[in-house]
Amino acid sequence: MSKAYNVAIVGATGAVGEQLRELLTDVNFQLGEIRLLASARSAGRKLNVGDQEIEVQELTHDSFDGIDIAFFSAGGDRTKEFGQSAIDAGAIVVDNTSAFRMDPETPLVVPEVNPDQLKNNKGLIANPNCSTIQMVAALKPIYDKFGISRVIASTYQAVSGAGLHAIEEMLNQYKAILAGEEIDAPQYLPVGGDKKHYQMAFNVLPQIDKFQDNHYTFEEMKMTNETKKILGDDQVAVSTTAVRVPVIKGHSESVYIEVKEDGVTIEDIMAVLKDAPGIVLEDDIDNQVYPQPIKAASERGTFVGRIRQDLDFERGFHMWIVSDNLWKGAALNSIQIAESLVDQGLV
Amino acid sequence: MSKAYNVAIVGATGAVGEQLRELLTDVNFQLGEIRLLASARSAGRKLNVGDQEIEVQELTHDSFDGIDIAFFSAGGDRTKEFGQSAIDAGAIVVDNTSAFRMDPETPLVVPEVNPDQLKNNKGLIANPNCSTIQMVAALKPIYDKFGISRVIASTYQAVSGAGLHAIEEMLNQYKAILAGEEIDAPQYLPVGGDKKHYQMAFNVLPQIDKFQDNHYTFEEMKMTNETKKILGDDQVAVSTTAVRVPVIKGHSESVYIEVKEDGVTIEDIMAVLKDAPGIVLEDDIDNQVYPQPIKAASERGTFVGRIRQDLDFERGFHMWIVSDNLWKGAALNSIQIAESLVDQGLV
Repeated sequence: MSKAYNVAIVGATGAVGEQLRELLTDVNFQLGEIRLLASARSAGRKLNVGDQEIEVQELTHDSFDGIDIAFFSAGGDRTKEFGQSAIDAGAIVVDNTSAFRMDPETPLVVPEVNPDQLKNNKGLIANPNCSTIQMVAALKPIYDKFGISRVIASTYQAVSGAGLHAIEEMLNQYKAILAGEEIDAPQYLPVGGDKKHYQMAFNVLPQIDKFQDNHYTFEEMKMTNETKKILGDDQVAVSTTAVRVPVIKGHSESVYIEVKEDGVTIEDIMAVLKDAPGIVLEDDIDNQVYPQPIKAASERGTFVGRIRQDLDFERGFHMWIVSDNLWKGAALNSIQIAESLVDQGLV
Repeated sequence: MSKAYNVAIVGATGAVGEQLRELLTDVNFQLGEIRLLASARSAGRKLNVGDQEIEVQELTHDSFDGIDIAFFSAGGDRTKEFGQSAIDAGAIVVDNTSAFRMDPETPLVVPEVNPDQLKNNKGLIANPNCSTIQMVAALKPIYDKFGISRVIASTYQAVSGAGLHAIEEMLNQYKAILAGEEIDAPQYLPVGGDKKHYQMAFNVLPQIDKFQDNHYTFEEMKMTNETKKILGDDQVAVSTTAVRVPVIKGHSESVYIEVKEDGVTIEDIMAVLKDAPGIVLEDDIDNQVYPQPIKAASERGTFVGRIRQDLDFERGFHMWIVSDNLWKGAALNSIQIAESLVDQGLV
């Protein structure tokens, strides 16, 4: 009989925690205990994981006894404070925050892209940023076949990436506006911890995460730096604009690439994507088929369409990449990391 | 006493016609008669233009007697059918449709960019596509100062660009969804005349106008071809992705450019834009100031912010361009064309 793995979810009540609980019912390894951890405020709440009703426990340094895999999605500070305790208790941490992603000692993994990095873990594996995961999943097969010298991306990111409070805030804005009422002063969008907050309903906000000295936001720099790290290639140029749109679930990305090889056609790109792991090609312009966030929500794939060749630069191609930011962009990728760890005998 | 100009609005009941009526009250030349024209279905309706209540007349070939300037925004077929009658009656036609934009005999004009083209008119001046106008208005001062070799743009376009029915359809979708009800089958979005229609509420649709054989949409090709024509430069490479977002008014654009000159800085770009006609620089990252569609709605400017230099290519710059698609993108630009015609003594 195969081993049963005990799993903990830190941040069980949050947006990603909710999706982790949903996806755990379908994991391809034997589950043992499922331990739900959150702040003292949420301790005692009962949450469902499949048929089980599980009481949320307060996260402490002693929370990880007997745990094999600990999913962290409760903010970077929580991982910094409690991650080592989980590792010390014998767990492998799969961290959804940005705390350790660029740490040279920490593997940053999209399982269909760089599963070989998992064996280098020192107890913690970082799950990349949502907008990075879907982009790199779509680019990797093209990168492997034709080479990619350059990426220029603009994102259309869903509000769920900013958490459950942000979704609620946006929905309340819609209710007020449609009722002809004033909206409440925004508190969570575009960035909960930043100084100013703006209306999201019927609006588009070109800020995700805080601004850096180089005028890019932290989200934009995550896409640049994480893509280079996951591809293991410092030479690929990645420059992005990260934008929040009033969508609940599903990030979309308009991505322009330059391939290294000459003579590549739209059909070549399509052929590579059609056979790529985790990728669903949705590109049938005669029937107006292309990826859309409402169709990608609660789906496992990374959907790619609108593939076009630059009319002036034959090595330039556009594509439109959509995926569920809480699934492939977070919870599902974390679970796939856990599955790959089990497959590779690393846990 | 200066001359009073008689003005007709063809398509007076539509989304752009509504904005033309609003903006006419503030035009900088002497207005004479204002004639509102529409289909037989709308004839007899009374609409306000400033203090005046004006009865809509049915559009016929005899509608233009005594008219000096005729604004057309009732679809390309209407311009093709009735435009010549207006010209024959002595009017200059300012056409908001795509019917004549790429006609080599027709000036395609953004008044702060290429007003000198107006004198070449043969009775009809084309108003460019909404997404082209704001982009070219922002790029022209940079083009003049530093040269631009290449443009890669992704748009975030408002639903009002698809007309009043499309706005109503989206608003009804929000009402249904927030009430927990099913939405009605979409009929207008993404493209009224196309085969399939999709939900716009909480969604993003990477299709504006119909697909062409080269896999680009007609909207994307408009941006490419019109930008080259307005700049008078076939060598500038322009490649775009046009996307509809659930915003009512205000198109946003994530635009990447490569300038020709070496050594250009963010500050150089900002300095040029700060002094450019019609451009409002909104780029103060310390205070989270950047253009947003809800702030640009019913404003005259083209707002530019989020200016960043590519970290790998020093001649590459990103910017975020927002403007009211019905104002600068349509009605206001048309009125500015009329004002420039008057200023230049061409009407």
